[in-house]
Amino acid sequence: MNSGLHIIKIGGNIIDDDAQLQRFLEQFSALRGKKILVHGGGKIATRIAADLGISAKLVDGRRITDKPMLDVATMVYAGLTNKHVVSSLQKLGCDALGLCGADGNTIKAIKRPVREIDYGYVGDILVDSVNPHSIKKFLEAGFTPVFSAITHNGLGQLLNTNADTIASALAVSLAKIYETKLIYCFEKDGVLRDVNDPESVIRLIKADEFKKLKAAKVIYEGMIPKLENAFEALGKGVKNVYIGNALNLYKYQQGEFGTCLLSK
Amino acid sequence: MNSGLHIIKIGGNIIDDDAQLQRFLEQFSALRGKKILVHGGGKIATRIAADLGISAKLVDGRRITDKPMLDVATMVYAGLTNKHVVSSLQKLGCDALGLCGADGNTIKAIKRPVREIDYGYVGDILVDSVNPHSIKKFLEAGFTPVFSAITHNGLGQLLNTNADTIASALAVSLAKIYETKLIYCFEKDGVLRDVNDPESVIRLIKADEFKKLKAAKVIYEGMIPKLENAFEALGKGVKNVYIGNALNLYKYQQGEFGTCLLSK
Repeated sequence: MNSGLHIIKIGGNIIDDDAQLQRFLEQFSALRGKKILVHGGGKIATRIAADLGISAKLVDGRRITDKPMLDVATMVYAGLTNKHVVSSLQKLGCDALGLCGADGNTIKAIKRPVREIDYGYVGDILVDSVNPHSIKKFLEAGFTPVFSAITHNGLGQLLNTNADTIASALAVSLAKIYETKLIYCFEKDGVLRDVNDPESVIRLIKADEFKKLKAAKVIYEGMIPKLENAFEALGKGVKNVYIGNALNLYKYQQGEFGTCLLSK
Repeated sequence: MNSGLHIIKIGGNIIDDDAQLQRFLEQFSALRGKKILVHGGGKIATRIAADLGISAKLVDGRRITDKPMLDVATMVYAGLTNKHVVSSLQKLGCDALGLCGADGNTIKAIKRPVREIDYGYVGDILVDSVNPHSIKKFLEAGFTPVFSAITHNGLGQLLNTNADTIASALAVSLAKIYETKLIYCFEKDGVLRDVNDPESVIRLIKADEFKKLKAAKVIYEGMIPKLENAFEALGKGVKNVYIGNALNLYKYQQGEFGTCLLSK
C-alpha cells in the first residue's frame, strides 16, 4: 500500500463564483500528499447554451444531453472551466494536469442504455470504467489530476457524466493502490441534524447509524443519494468519506472538516 | 540520446473537415515511435464566437484576442477540438493525452508586450517557455501528447498562442532529449517549385538553397515565415523538418513525404 490519496469533488456552485473558487483552490493546493480534484459543471454551460440558442431538452422532466448540449458541455467543462482551474492551480505552485476521461483513457463509460428514456450522450460508469494505472502514472510523476465530468466510450464518443459518480468511481478504483479518502464539498458545513440549523453538523456517521437517521427522516431527501453513494464507496475499500463546505477544506487535515462517514 | 520523437502540426483546414481529420488521425496513430500532435484552431471558434455575438476585433488589420475571444478559443481549442481529437485517437488505440500549456506547466508564455498594438491575450513563446521534463514524463509513460494552441503565463492567465510557433518551440526544446523531427502538415504536397503545379514539389531544401530560392522568388510569400521558422528550428538542434500534405502522412516513414528541410 502506497501513501495516502485525497480525492476532492467540488460542485457547480463554487465554480460559478470565482472569488470563492480561488479561496477553495488555495486550500486545495495547500493539502499535503497526493490529491485529485473532480469538478462539476456550474451554470456557465447553461448560459452559453442559451446564448447559442440551444435549449435544455427535457423528456418526462429529465434532462437530456443531445449532440449540441454535449458539445457545449465538452467546451465548457473540459475546456473553459477545466483550464481555468488548472492555470489557477499552477499559479499556486500546484502542478495540475487537466483531464477528461478520454485523456490517457482514464475513464471509459458506456452511453446510457435506452429504456423508457433516451438520455442522449450521457455516460454511465461501470465497475471497470476507471483505469487506475494511467492515473497512478500521473500521481507518481508528481502531477495533480483535475478531472472534468466528461468521459468517453473508447469508440470515439465523448459522454457527459455525473461528477459525484466520477469522484466515487475514482476513489473505489484507486483504493486498490492508495489509502484513499473521498471528500465531497458542497455549500453546507456537513450533514445537518436539523436542516434549519447550519451549526447542527453531525461529526461522524457510521453505516448502521445512517440507516437509523434515514428511517427517522433526520437526513433530508437531497442528501440521501449522496450518502448512499458515499457508503457504497466505503464498502468498496475507500478509507473515509467526508462531506463538508468547500471553503472549510483547510480544516480537513486538522481533522475538523464536515461530516466523516465510516463503514463501521 | 534517447530514441526518436516526431512532432506533427496540423492546421485549421483539416480540423474543419471531420472525414479528412479521421483519415489523418489513422495515419498519425500508425506512426511508429514517440510522437506529439499540435493542432491549430479551425473555423469552429469563429463560428461559435459569431453565434455568441462576439465579433473578431481588428486593430490596424491585426486580429486582437480580447477576453470574450480568449474564452471562446479556450472552449473550442482546449475543449471541443482537443477532446474530439483525443477520443478519436483513443478509438484507434493511440493513448492520447490532451494538453494545453497550463497542464503540467508544459508551456509558459508571456502576454505579448504592448507596443504599437495591444494584441490582448496573446502568448509569445520565449526560449525557455517549454518544460521538456514534464513532457518527457508523459512520453516515457507511453502517452501521446496532443497540444491545443492555448498556453498560460504561470500567473493564472491563459493565452492564445500560434500553433506553428508551439510546434517549433516543442521541437527545439525536446531536441535536447530526443532525436527530434518536426512535420508541418498543410493542404499542399510540399514546397512547390511552381505554385500553379501541385506536382512540382521540391523534395529537399538545404538552408543555403532556401536563400537562393527566396532571392529568385520561387518560394511564394505565405511560405516564407513558415520556412524561416523551420530553418531556425534546424539551427537549434532539430534533426529534420518536413512540410507536406496531412493526408500523405503515411508516406513519411517510407521517406517519401513532402519537402524535407536540412540545415546543410
